[in-house]
This record gives sequence, C-alpha cells and structure tokens, in this order.
Amino acid sequence: MFRIGIDIGGTNIAAGIVDESYKIVKKKTIKTRNVSTPSEMIQAIAGLVKDLMKSAMVKADMVTAIGVGVPGTLDPESGKVLYANNLGFEDVPFLTELKKALGEELADKVYFDNDANAAAIGEYITGDYNAKNFVMMTIGTGIGGGVIINGRVLRGCNYAAAEFGHMTINFDGVDCNCGRKGCFEDYASVEGLMNLAWEASRSSSGKKSLLGKVSKREELDGEIFFDAVRKGDKVAKKVLDEYLFYLSEGIINIINIFQPDVLTLSGGITKAADLYLDKLKDLVSKGIYSRNSSKNTEIMLSKGISDSGDIGIIGAALIYKM
Amino acid sequence: MFRIGIDIGGTNIAAGIVDESYKIVKKKTIKTRNVSTPSEMIQAIAGLVKDLMKSAMVKADMVTAIGVGVPGTLDPESGKVLYANNLGFEDVPFLTELKKALGEELADKVYFDNDANAAAIGEYITGDYNAKNFVMMTIGTGIGGGVIINGRVLRGCNYAAAEFGHMTINFDGVDCNCGRKGCFEDYASVEGLMNLAWEASRSSSGKKSLLGKVSKREELDGEIFFDAVRKGDKVAKKVLDEYLFYLSEGIINIINIFQPDVLTLSGGITKAADLYLDKLKDLVSKGIYSRNSSKNTEIMLSKGISDSGDIGIIGAALIYKM
Repeated sequence: MFRIGIDIGGTNIAAGIVDESYKIVKKKTIKTRNVSTPSEMIQAIAGLVKDLMKSAMVKADMVTAIGVGVPGTLDPESGKVLYANNLGFEDVPFLTELKKALGEELADKVYFDNDANAAAIGEYITGDYNAKNFVMMTIGTGIGGGVIINGRVLRGCNYAAAEFGHMTINFDGVDCNCGRKGCFEDYASVEGLMNLAWEASRSSSGKKSLLGKVSKREELDGEIFFDAVRKGDKVAKKVLDEYLFYLSEGIINIINIFQPDVLTLSGGITKAADLYLDKLKDLVSKGIYSRNSSKNTEIMLSKGISDSGDIGIIGAALIYKM
Repeated sequence: MFRIGIDIGGTNIAAGIVDESYKIVKKKTIKTRNVSTPSEMIQAIAGLVKDLMKSAMVKADMVTAIGVGVPGTLDPESGKVLYANNLGFEDVPFLTELKKALGEELADKVYFDNDANAAAIGEYITGDYNAKNFVMMTIGTGIGGGVIINGRVLRGCNYAAAEFGHMTINFDGVDCNCGRKGCFEDYASVEGLMNLAWEASRSSSGKKSLLGKVSKREELDGEIFFDAVRKGDKVAKKVLDEYLFYLSEGIINIINIFQPDVLTLSGGITKAADLYLDKLKDLVSKGIYSRNSSKNTEIMLSKGISDSGDIGIIGAALIYKM
C-alpha cells in the first residue's frame, strides 16, 4: 500500500507517493505562483496526485491515504483553510473541493493539516521515537514546531498550535513581524543568529575577526559563521554564547510548559550542533523549573527524515495516522 | 458510587468523599506539619481516607477511585514522587506505599497527579466545557495551570507540565525565585500586580492617590487595589493597564502554543474581572499570531468549582477519569 503526501510551500507544491518504509517512490513539483486562485490550486493538486498515480502505476485501491500540509490555520469541522497568508487564502473550502476534484474513489482518503504539524508527524513516525510526549522545534529562518501527546498531534482549535517562534521572551525587545516585540524567533532563529553576528562584526574587534571579512549582511550565512567558530574566532564564539542563551530561554519555556519526554531540534541550525549541543543542554538543565527532579526532558537532534527536503511530503502522507 | 480526593498542600492535607454530582459529602483535614516524614504522611493519608469512609459509612465497594493531588514532580511508571519542594520529598515511592497502607480492597483504585493537573481536571469536568483543547490558567500568588487535550490531561514526563508561571517573558527582567529572570508570574500574578501598585503608590502622584493611603507593602491587597480602580483612581487605573499588558503577553504566548478552544482564567485575580476582562480579551485578540483566522481561542472565567477551596479535593477525586 501507498500514501500520497502533498506539501504546499510558498514557492513549490511538491507531491510524492510514499511507500510502507516511508520512502518516496515518485515525486512531482509545480510552482506555487503558477496557480493564482484557491480553486486553481486545488485542481492542480488533484492533477498532481493523478499524474503521480498514473506514472507510478498506483491504483486508487492501493492508496491508504492522501494528506496535504498547508501553511495556515485550518478548521477540522468545515474542512476549510481559514487563513494562509503566503497563499492568500481566506476561508477556502479546501477539503471539500479537493475531495470533489479527486473523485469518489479517493475522496474518503483525503486529510489535511498544518504543514508544521505534518512535519512533526513525519519526524515522530520515521524517527521511531519512544516518547509519549514529544516536541519538535525547527530552527531555520524562523522557528516552528510540532507537538505529539499520547500518540496524537497537538492541533489546537485551528490546527495552528505549536507556534513556538511567536512566544515573546522579551516583551520590550526587538520588533517582530507578528506585531509584538521580542519573539523567540527574533533572537533564536538562524536569522536571529546572523543578525547578532553581523552586529558583532561591525564593532572594532569584530572588524578584525573572521566575521569582519564579510562586507554585506546578505553575505553572512551559517556556514561562514560556524566556520569562524570552528577556527576559534573569539568574536564568533562570543556571539554563539549570546545566541545559546536566547535559544535556551525559549527551550526552557517550552519544557516548563510541556515537560516532553523528548524535545528534538531540527532545521538549519542543527548542522553545526557539534559546536554547541552540549553547552545548550547544560544551560537548559540548569534553568528548567523541574531541575531537581530525577526525570526530565531529553534534548536531541532530529533523527528522522526531517533534514531531507522531503519531510513535508512524507509528513503529509502520514497525517492520517495521528 | 463515590470517589475520594486528597489534596496535599503546604499547610493542610485535605480529604473528601465526592459524590456523583461532584459534591463533597464528607471532609477532613490535618496539618501538613504534623507529619514529618514521607512514610508518616502516607500513613496519615491512609488514616484520613479510612476515617472518612467510616464516618460517611462508605464501604470499599462503593468507592470508584481514590486520587491524590501532590505539589511536585511524579513518575507514573514507578509511582514515585520525584521531587516536592514544599514537602521535602525526593524519590518517595508514594503510590506503592499508599496502596499498601490502604489495603487490598482499595489498592487498585488509587491514583495520583500533580495538584495543578488535578485542579484542571476538576474544573474541566465540573465546568462541563465543550472543548477538545482546554487550558486553565490560575492566577493567584503565583501562576499555575493545567491543559486538557483530546480528553486527557497534559502531564508530561514527570506530571509537572503546564508550569505557565515560569515562562520567561522578559529574559533580562526581574529576578525570579526559579533562578531565571522575568518569568510570567513575576509580572502577572496577584503578587506581581501588588508589586506594581506598591511601586506606583510611592511616586509623588501615587502618594496623593487612594493607593498612597497604604503605608506598608503588606497592607496592600487586591481588595484595596481594585477598590481604588473602581473609584476611578488614576494611578490605580494606570497600574492596571500596565498589568494587563503583562498578563496579555503571557496569555498570547500560551494561545500561540496551544491554540486551545477555551482558555479559562481562575484564581484570586478573577474576582475583579468585571474591571478588566473585556480589555484583556481585546489585547489578546490583537496580539495572537492567528488573529486573521476566523476561528480562535475563547477566553472566559472558570465556571466550575475552582473558586471554591474544594477544587483540590474534587479534582483529585476525578484524576482517574483523565
């Protein structure tokens, strides 16, 4: 049997047929900008699914489930996408229309979820975690997440739970694009780290450091930064320490709130984890409210398929499971 | 049939027999300080339960469940109280010993949970909320909480989840007793509000205000403060506005994280809710990340039994349900 996962991103809509061992056996992608209305997108998704099935010679009765990861808030009862900023969707009867477009044979097998929830489902299942309470925190350009409790994903009333990035950790801090100040992702995303590094690189000691060689903010990236840390650059190391404080503050908040068995880190920042994971764990273990308890959250790097670009597809294909 | 609930507090251990309509039919209390070791406390609890059953003429086969709310971290697998600061407990085999002390007829009916979880269970069941995702935030001297998702309480790996009070909202803010800085409860508990009010009362305009009539910090309480607000005292109203900002920041964080159907407020602060609830709701609705979505969290005052002092007992008696 197969499942089909569809990941709707701002740039691409990617769909794949996923086998029993969570491998993608066939994949297709279209540009998101090529479909301008919700109805066009729904038709395009149905077309993608049918194309995929045809080219992989998968018949409807070989499909267990079709899942779509949507970047927005959803309503489980009406099957609507309530709001998806990147797609320009507002109150779109997504599920009903997609079922119609896919036809009777597939209609009963269609599921949707928020894309971050789908990713957490994918990580949880493919990573084979032995955890009743599981939190995934994804640290990339922004910070997102997903939570699984007692074998079910925490969706909340509009499927948009686990918006960790928009938890303020500094109510009079920097302006956030969400309208508030001092959100976790402003400090602890890769973007937040690069902002710190850029600022440090402009100071008098920073100019003489490895970071100082970069002359434009856009040129600075994780590779350059962590390379400087690896080479023992003092300015870069100081920046990393400051960053780890911010990151630990958000992680401690989330642990105090969920007390998960496992909190797994994924996303771009984890590529250089050998440089900071032990220190991060130490900061967290000293700060959590339950630190005197002999049982606490284990922090680890994601071990499932989440570092591949295919997490969105595989996770979406597995939505029906949770 | 009856359930028995036991609430272990820092001052009293209170136990009650609870009937099918969640009323306490018989209640007994002992002083916590009269039992100095964990074993003594467990024996005393078993004694309380037997006393209660005897005086209410409730036989073992009339008891559905016995639940204990413990102020600490617990381990569901070993039945241990891992750590309870107020009780001086560390790795106490609580459940095993209590079962033994209660005897064979009752042993299978014994449950325990963190006291805040028990309170949330009590509120959720007696308040008859129609909510798959439910958050209770209790604002008193500190800030605590409980979360119910898909009909089960969020316990976390050590039963100490939902520690909302120790979510930093200002990482370089005031020192918190938990060792971090700027925790939600430092700003948004009743204590936090009183600190703000006291500070304002010492300013030159504050001295002329109704708050200025109080000459000692200990004399200032919620009644005096909200009475001043009710009388239109400008200084008090300004303090309330500042406080509501802090309170809303924490609530917005929790909504962004859980997206509950319902977030209910309980605790001392709710007594004066007529003075601020609408304003608070307005602040929250403007700040939440999903504010453009047509489906969002409903904020309300607790409507169950949580304002009575018996919430701890009733909630504990209902632990077995969730």
